[in-house]
This record gives sequence, C-alpha cells and structure tokens, in this order.
Amino acid sequence: MENSFIKALAGIVGAPNTLTDPESLACYGYDSTPELQSRPGAVLLPGSAEEISQVMALCHEAGVRVTPRGSGTNLSGGSISFDAGVVLQTSRLNRILEIDEENLTATVETGVITSALHREVEAKGLFYPPDPGSMNISTMGGNVAENSGGLRGLKYGVTDDYVMGLKTVLADGDLLKTGGKVVKDVAGYNLNQLLVSSEGTLGIFTEITVKLIPKPVAKKTMLVHFPQLEQAALTVSHIIAARIIPATLEFLDRVTIKCVEDYAHVGLPLDVDAVLLIEVDGHPAQVEEDAAGIREICERHHCSFFQTAAGPEEALKLATARRVALSALARMRPTTILEDATVPRSCIAPMVKLIQDTARKYDLLIGTFGHAGDGNLHPTCLTDERNPDEISRAHKAFGEIFEATIAMGGTITGEHGVGVAKKKYLPKLVGESGLRVMRGIKGALDPKGILNPGKIFSLTSD
Amino acid sequence: MENSFIKALAGIVGAPNTLTDPESLACYGYDSTPELQSRPGAVLLPGSAEEISQVMALCHEAGVRVTPRGSGTNLSGGSISFDAGVVLQTSRLNRILEIDEENLTATVETGVITSALHREVEAKGLFYPPDPGSMNISTMGGNVAENSGGLRGLKYGVTDDYVMGLKTVLADGDLLKTGGKVVKDVAGYNLNQLLVSSEGTLGIFTEITVKLIPKPVAKKTMLVHFPQLEQAALTVSHIIAARIIPATLEFLDRVTIKCVEDYAHVGLPLDVDAVLLIEVDGHPAQVEEDAAGIREICERHHCSFFQTAAGPEEALKLATARRVALSALARMRPTTILEDATVPRSCIAPMVKLIQDTARKYDLLIGTFGHAGDGNLHPTCLTDERNPDEISRAHKAFGEIFEATIAMGGTITGEHGVGVAKKKYLPKLVGESGLRVMRGIKGALDPKGILNPGKIFSLTSD
Repeated sequence: MENSFIKALAGIVGAPNTLTDPESLACYGYDSTPELQSRPGAVLLPGSAEEISQVMALCHEAGVRVTPRGSGTNLSGGSISFDAGVVLQTSRLNRILEIDEENLTATVETGVITSALHREVEAKGLFYPPDPGSMNISTMGGNVAENSGGLRGLKYGVTDDYVMGLKTVLADGDLLKTGGKVVKDVAGYNLNQLLVSSEGTLGIFTEITVKLIPKPVAKKTMLVHFPQLEQAALTVSHIIAARIIPATLEFLDRVTIKCVEDYAHVGLPLDVDAVLLIEVDGHPAQVEEDAAGIREICERHHCSFFQTAAGPEEALKLATARRVALSALARMRPTTILEDATVPRSCIAPMVKLIQDTARKYDLLIGTFGHAGDGNLHPTCLTDERNPDEISRAHKAFGEIFEATIAMGGTITGEHGVGVAKKKYLPKLVGESGLRVMRGIKGALDPKGILNPGKIFSLTSD
Repeated sequence: MENSFIKALAGIVGAPNTLTDPESLACYGYDSTPELQSRPGAVLLPGSAEEISQVMALCHEAGVRVTPRGSGTNLSGGSISFDAGVVLQTSRLNRILEIDEENLTATVETGVITSALHREVEAKGLFYPPDPGSMNISTMGGNVAENSGGLRGLKYGVTDDYVMGLKTVLADGDLLKTGGKVVKDVAGYNLNQLLVSSEGTLGIFTEITVKLIPKPVAKKTMLVHFPQLEQAALTVSHIIAARIIPATLEFLDRVTIKCVEDYAHVGLPLDVDAVLLIEVDGHPAQVEEDAAGIREICERHHCSFFQTAAGPEEALKLATARRVALSALARMRPTTILEDATVPRSCIAPMVKLIQDTARKYDLLIGTFGHAGDGNLHPTCLTDERNPDEISRAHKAFGEIFEATIAMGGTITGEHGVGVAKKKYLPKLVGESGLRVMRGIKGALDPKGILNPGKIFSLTSD
C-alpha cells in the first residue's frame, strides 16, 4: 500500500488509529480460524460512521480492498484480509445508544460487545436472546454480519430474528438506512435480512436496532447422561414431538465429555455416549410441566442420570460442561478445526454416527458437541497443522461430512459463516442458480468487488 | 399479444388453461385495490413448477412481461398486469405436500389457501400463526410475496418469520432452491428473506416450507371499551411496558365501531372513542395472569366496559367486531381505500389523532382500525371513485398521513406491499441509496425487467 494512500486514510481516522507497524499487521493478520493468516496493508480504527464512509469512498475510488473486523472471533476466515488490503476494525464504535422500553428495542453502535448489551437490557427486565459462544468478546456488528446463533436458538431463534434496523456504509461510502423501530415493514425489498449474514461483503454496519422481548421469569436447567447415543438422539426428537420447546437442548459426545471432565472436573461420567444439557424457561407453571415432561421422556429412553439444578448457581455449574466444551477440546492438540454442520433435527442420530465413523476411517480425533435441538452440530477435529498428512485427512473427513450433511437436506454452516474456509462446499449446496443470484447481488452492491473480497464465493466461475 | 405466442404458451400449460376471451381478461384485470384495473394479454393457469419454468423461459426470450397472481386479494395493485402481459395464476398448484411433525415444518405448493394450511396443522396440535384478513381466500404464495401479517403478529410475527425454504422460478425460467428444513443456515446470502415481500418482482414461488410451532393450549379473549382515544392508546403502551405480550391487540375507532354495529349488531356502544380486542394465549397459568394484568391496566385507564369471553364461542363473537371491520366499513360507500400506515407502537395515539384531523381537514369519512400492538393501523377512506374531487382529496389526505408516518420513524406499508399504489411514497422512505440498492438487485435477478414490471419502484430514476 502506498505511503501517500495510507497518509490519506490517516487524515480521516487520525494517525493513532492508523496502524502499519509489523506487530499490528501481524496481530490483525488472523482470526479464530485455524490454518489461515495473511498480513493486511494497514489497520484502521475509525471512530464514527462518517469516518467509515469517508474511508470507503477513498478506497472505492482507489480500488483498495477492505475487510471489516469486529473482535476477530470469526471461525471461517471471514475477518482476514488476504490481499494486503485495509482491515477496518470497528471496536471504537462501542456505545449502547438507546434502550427503548416502550417499543422494546435497543439501538447500539456496531462495536458493542454482545454480552454488554445482555447485561444492560436484563437489568431492565428485558431480554436479547442471541448468545453466541464468543459473546463476551464478539461485537454486535460481527454477530449481524455472521448471523450468529448460540445456545438459546431452539426456542428464540438467532441474530437474524432480532435485527429490525441497520445503518450501513456501502462499498462506495454511501450511507444506507434500512428498517427501524416498526415491527412490520414491507416497503420494498427486505434489505435488513439480506445484509444480515452477508459476512462483510455487502456493507459495513455502523448502527444496529434489535428487538427485545420480556425476560422469562423462571428457568430450569437439567443435565442428563445417556449410555447410548441413539437414545439421546431419540430423546431430542421426542421432546419436540411432545410439543415442548426448550430454550436450550445441547449435546456432548463421548470424546467431548472426556475432555471436559479432564479440564473442568464437573463430575461427568466417562462411560456414557452422550450428555444432554436442557434448559426450559418461561412462566413458572410452564417450566414445571415442561421439566416434568422432559424427565419422563429421558427416563423412557434409559438415561442413566438426571439432575435438575436446585438454583441459579447450580444451573451455572451444570451449564459449564457445555460452555467449556470448545476450550476443553482445544487444549488437547495444537490445532482445533471447529465445524458447524447442520441437519434437520430428525437427522441428529445418523449425523453423529457418521461423524464418528468418518473420524475412525481417517484415524482422527473428532469430538462432537452442539445445538442438538437445532440440528446444529460442532464436530471438532483436534489436530496439528504442522502435520500435513493429518491435516489432509482432516480435510477429507470434513469433505465427506459436508457431503452427507447436504444429502440429508442440511447445510454446510449453521452459524459460523462460509468465509474462505467453506467456500468450496457452497456451490454444491446452493447450485448454479444460487451462485448466479448471489454474484448478481454482490455485483450490484459492490461492482468493484472491494468489500471483503474472496469471501463466501468467487466473483466469477472458476 | 401475437396469436403464435399464445399458441406456444398453450402448448406448455394446455389450451383449457390458457384464457384469452374478453370475459376472463376482464376478470383478471383487477385485484382488491380500488381505482386500478388493466386488461392482461393472456391468463395462464399452469399446473406445475416445470410448466411455470417453461413459460418464463419462453416469455424471457420474447421479452413478454409476466405478473404472478394468487387469489388477487392484493391491496396495492400488485397482481394487476398493466402492460397487456401475461397473468400467471398459481391456483392449480394447491397441494399440501407434507407436514413434518418431527422437524415442525410444513411444505406446500404455492397456491394452497392459507386457512387450509391452518386447519391441517391445527388438527395435529401444531400452529402456523400468520393469519391475514384474507386468509380464507389468499394463497400461501401470495402471502410470501407480500410478507402478509395478520391479527397474531404482535406475539408471533409475520409470514417472513416462518419461511424456511422456497422453490422459485427466476425470470429466465431457471429454478432456484433456497433454505429447507434446517432451522439455522448461514451458507451465503439470505435469499429466502430477500424473496419474501419481493411482490413477484424477483421470482415466482412454486413450493414453500414454513416453520410450525406447538399450538398454544389456552387462550383468553377480551373486549374493552374506552370513552377516550388517548386512554386506549396509553393502555396499549402500558400493557407492553408491563412485559405482557398479547397474541392480539387490536383497535377500532369511533367511525369503525359505528359501522360494525350497524352491520353486525354485536352490541358495541356508539358513544365511545375506541374499542380494543385483546387475546392472550399460552400456558393456562400465564394466560390467567396476563388477563388479570391487562384488566388492571384497562381499568386504570378508565375503560367503561371490560368483557372476557366465557368460552370459544363467545370469543369468536367478540373477535367478530374486529374481523368484520373492513366489510362493515366497505359497505358504506362505493369505494374503499384501505391503507396500512405503520408507526413505532409508542406513536399510536398521535397517529390516530393525526388521521382523524386529516379526515376533518379534507372533509372525508375515514374509519381507522388495526393492529395497535404492532403500530400497524388501517385508516380506511370511504369514498366514491366516480367523484374525482373527493378522490383527489383522499389522495392528498393519505399523502399527508404517509409523510407523518415517515416522520414518526414509521413505514408506508406494514403488510399490504408497495405495488403501484404506494410507489410514489417509497423514495421518501428508503432514500436514494435504498432505491439504488433495490434497483441493483432487481437488475441482477431480472435484467430484462419482465417480472411484475412497474411494481414497488421504477427501474430508472424518473
């Protein structure tokens, strides 16, 4: 990147917010995705929507590529600049602008940390349900760009279900305002929901208005052990079939259970195939009945242990088993490949079995946990990127897993995005027409292809 | 339209499904929008997705314009062909293909009647919440194209919130499959939600997969009279502020009350400003508490009458007052202009007042009813299209009403769509950037501009 151009950028965001030293470029050269890194040409930390708009106008004119970045918790390489372009880091736009109790909305700047919003709204008896695993560091803008999920998706949906309004800087610096505080709006195309999950390829969010709901008054947390995987999967299906919709219905497999127990010593057994973490919430009477119904279903499916948390502290302890799953797995080997294959929830049992068979076939250590109620599993391969043979086997294994996911009517990514890591699987899923339409939309909004280039799909057929 | 071209179309859908006689062309020349009609060149009733695809391929090649049509209940002129093109009527694709109780989804062909789906899923203890006023005649494809709302939107959301998968025929006849039965899917752009509410301008749906939820077990219906409008509006705000989310929170103003009583003799008083119809549903204990809380809030705001339905039959009777509102108003004068201005729900009181003042200013009879909990009002002007002076005053009045709606942070259409009827107000709402992005998307998906041309926005700046 030319010095004069960097100077012009610094003129917009200020010299202290324009990083070009090798240490900074190295730090911003990777995100939470294994195996991927690439040094950007410059890192900018703008302080306002206006500054982002000016930066984009300048980059657009010069044809310089820009990768927006929140906290870099991305798991598909989506926040890495692969062509020495600009990384545009949004963390300085971090104000919660308004919590509107009458309209049940919150308006935040894009860099607000997800859990900071949780705390703020819950203090008012309100609730913003999306709770991605990275919520203590992830930004709201990142959540919107990736359409982040979380543990409460089964009952409450994901980020997409809560976005009501956006302010977005487009590729050429133009400002776009979509939606707002109205709960119903059909005036023109639904640009809000198109922008959600566009992974920074269509625009950079500056302000986000989300829907809030009343905070559920009661909650019950249960932890259940199953000697047999098949029975745990049937339990998931039968809970839903009994018309019970838990807030959380999470699953850990045998490998994950062992790693969690080694790591956190929460008292998990080492001789069971599966553990389910189940949370129901709502009206106290509903919660009681749902919990009783769930217990009956678990027992009918031969669970070996059923524990209900006595209070909030014990609930937190039970939930720990699931919350630490990724960290517990990650410490086993140098490299963690965390995937998010998602199938219709009726296919959970065959999917887990297929993952385990595939791990054996390629002699890999894969632990699986995830959002069983959503059919959203996290097969997590524990490997070492310095071992090319093992890595190659891992990629082959995931190739087969994704192929099976698609064959079951599932998707290659339930919540982590396509980024670059899953680009090669997308054509198979969305087909030629799907790709053609997505490329058309990208071309219309970003004709020069400068916004987060190379992510999701290539601009032309390869 | 040339005879040889009509012959080619008939070769695809069959001669009996190709209508060109003057009577048919007249019948398909209008929808439920007042003041608008235009005779199409031909009406086709295809019997399959494959036939729709072939029709589109042929029309695309020839540059012939196509307007998709469900049951013609559209209120913004969206299902009228204004350029002697083809009307493509989807009513023959009317099979409910599957109700999947394990994954809580229903898959239907595009021409299935909304209430037919309701009946089918409710028989299985499941629930498809969207219930637009026209649900007994409207098609699911039409509901998706317009993102239809209904009386249960406050708690349950609208059509958009339930669409999981679509099969769509694109402008050139290509088939596009988006989404499916997975509850979480972030693989590429959210084309599902872009296609919802695109008003037939981006593609023609052939198959729709929607999310189902468990049917609420208990329900309570309340009818409340308020001598003063202001107090009714405050009641709406305070119910939400008390963290109670009714399934239904509907409003009738004085004009509407009088018309409903004249028409249906349901025992409404003629000396009150407002009636609220409120329904809560869910767990019986929750329903009891919510109803008690609502009663307390209504009484605090000086309601003059509060009735709770004793059972389902009485509930139906109470709901009649709201369900017949449009019919009751429509019979007063030859022409009914039904609008759907929508504001943040905190602005209900000033909005209703503004509508009443505007009616007085232009010497018009406007009754207002609607979804108060959503901020979605239906100011309904009772007029006569043979009286050009009155019609001109009506348009001026609605122009001012929409201007005020936008100024309050609202939208020009909450559930009826833009079509042609509200095209002129869209630029003010979405701005130049919004229009540019929408035009870009339209151009990418339908470069020849043959799909429902002239709806929502013009392809070029006028």
